[in-house]
Amino acid sequence: MGQETNAPTIPGGETPSADPAAFLRAAQAAIDGKTKPPGSLGRLETLALQIARVQQTLEPTAERCRLTVFAADHGIAQAGVSAFPQEVTRQMLQNFLAGGAAANVMARTLGVEFALVDAGVKGPALEGPGLASVRIGNGTNSSAERAAMSAAQCHRALREGRLIGGEPGHEAASFGEMGIGNTSSASLVAAKLLGLPVGSLVGRGTGLDDNGLARKRRILEAAAGRTPGELEPEAALAEYGGFETVMLAGAVMGAAEAGKLVLVDGFIATVSALAALRMMPSLKRHLVFAHRSAESGHAVVLEAMGAEPLLDLGLRLGEGTGALLAWPLVQAAAAILRDMSSFRSAGVSGKS
Amino acid sequence: MGQETNAPTIPGGETPSADPAAFLRAAQAAIDGKTKPPGSLGRLETLALQIARVQQTLEPTAERCRLTVFAADHGIAQAGVSAFPQEVTRQMLQNFLAGGAAANVMARTLGVEFALVDAGVKGPALEGPGLASVRIGNGTNSSAERAAMSAAQCHRALREGRLIGGEPGHEAASFGEMGIGNTSSASLVAAKLLGLPVGSLVGRGTGLDDNGLARKRRILEAAAGRTPGELEPEAALAEYGGFETVMLAGAVMGAAEAGKLVLVDGFIATVSALAALRMMPSLKRHLVFAHRSAESGHAVVLEAMGAEPLLDLGLRLGEGTGALLAWPLVQAAAAILRDMSSFRSAGVSGKS
Repeated sequence: MGQETNAPTIPGGETPSADPAAFLRAAQAAIDGKTKPPGSLGRLETLALQIARVQQTLEPTAERCRLTVFAADHGIAQAGVSAFPQEVTRQMLQNFLAGGAAANVMARTLGVEFALVDAGVKGPALEGPGLASVRIGNGTNSSAERAAMSAAQCHRALREGRLIGGEPGHEAASFGEMGIGNTSSASLVAAKLLGLPVGSLVGRGTGLDDNGLARKRRILEAAAGRTPGELEPEAALAEYGGFETVMLAGAVMGAAEAGKLVLVDGFIATVSALAALRMMPSLKRHLVFAHRSAESGHAVVLEAMGAEPLLDLGLRLGEGTGALLAWPLVQAAAAILRDMSSFRSAGVSGKS
Repeated sequence: MGQETNAPTIPGGETPSADPAAFLRAAQAAIDGKTKPPGSLGRLETLALQIARVQQTLEPTAERCRLTVFAADHGIAQAGVSAFPQEVTRQMLQNFLAGGAAANVMARTLGVEFALVDAGVKGPALEGPGLASVRIGNGTNSSAERAAMSAAQCHRALREGRLIGGEPGHEAASFGEMGIGNTSSASLVAAKLLGLPVGSLVGRGTGLDDNGLARKRRILEAAAGRTPGELEPEAALAEYGGFETVMLAGAVMGAAEAGKLVLVDGFIATVSALAALRMMPSLKRHLVFAHRSAESGHAVVLEAMGAEPLLDLGLRLGEGTGALLAWPLVQAAAAILRDMSSFRSAGVSGKS
């Protein structure tokens, strides 16, 4: 059912233009004809091919990117799974509004638009310039005890996220998250999607010590035990997700439907992208895996998705910060295909 | 002697301001006080520390970067060590002048200034807007037969490079190279600096096949045999270097003397930086190793220098293209330290 509602045809998706194999051959030939030894730009070349395929042009553009950070609170945070207290979610939302968080600063530096969504931070609704209030609830239930949210809430979060992800005006979108406890939530969702023991996906999050990590593992193993076995994506999200991470999954689908590239951030955002991919398999070509997080579960999820990220810088902050750092690589890749001269046009001799 | 002439005190170098340890503690405390879990920005944090140390401020800037590409020809190219014919050096210089090479396109995309130096391309001097003609000779001698250049030429190339590297107006400099045969030259220089068999530093360059690689290895082993054992940096450069790569070594010293960060590109640029470092050990803190090239000798040289580059994208083009991709990371790192709010200023609760 979810498969049907959530999987319409997307640009370059189920009904690609003319002959996709011919297009890829033409794109590869265009890259090989550029004034450089064949293959010498490594992963930038495969990235350029991907961008060309998504945009269905040999002159792709990468002028505008938007980072949308979704924030919400998690009932499970109150069980003591994080190194930080729950009120930090709300405080960080105010920090984002003031422009002082890492994601703000890095977005400004890298020329990426910044947008913020309150998906359900605990307490009264906040207001501020550039803040969209799309509150699905006042924080989730603790998934250690029962489903984090109702099926209706989950469905609404996906729908709202899809609308946000589909907003026009930029070729690339990245999505970040803020929510104390959401590393735990992501570990549980990933375990249920991949059919893995949650213990293999538990890490230190924002910086738990050994005792904290052992406690988190016990709590998550008990929570995972509520619903034995694997779950379908919408069920996994409703049982263990957060309002911000479910909305993020919806946004990935919406961005792909709108023909955008999606720069995938760290562990939490990747788990949301995995859920989106399960609901809409044709979006895979839109995903650019930006970086490998130091959060230990990320490598497990990336491997399960067959993804090899562009960057490996030991980041583990979230907020979309890793995705931001991949934007200049996307811009460089698009420019290589669009703007470099060819051996023929520049009169440069080829390989002997 | 070279040690004396080439190693004056540089900013933040032999006579650092006040108490360097206290400065580093203050910089670390400033980073740890930012609104993020401690250490969660990984290598961006250590990069921010390095930039602060070079600029001697807790509010570092990274507004302007210049890429200077040095081009020259190599006598050893005529022995058949490259997949491309020698005239490509000159053709590529014209491609740079027309703005169509990878380095031009990527520099424009990433907001980096581009400059070009003819250090000794074979044939009549070229002219064009933005091209500095600093010709040390009409291509080098073949180092398979005798010294690539005289000691006087080597000294002049270092001096001219140092002037270019020291030009004001930007906080960061990156240096690229173009010269058919210069991977061979760099392998020989590295072997003589590190005391390694040249065979351990030979790779496919712009794309040799197995036969070409075997031939290159034989030619380089014979060339290395002309001067048994290790060589001092200036001797290694004069015997086996190129006008463009010696000038690049000088530029690294000049940039460090002027207090700039130096973004170090791939195999060839790293070997020039190694030579510069041997002549001026205090410049090490200025070096930001941008990427690990797919050219096999690069990993060997990086390991010998204890360097762990930021990026690993399978690039092997040269021209400074890998260094360019690290510039946004430098900008993000500086901005984090300069612009992020602190837990205190933003009223965010710390780790419990």
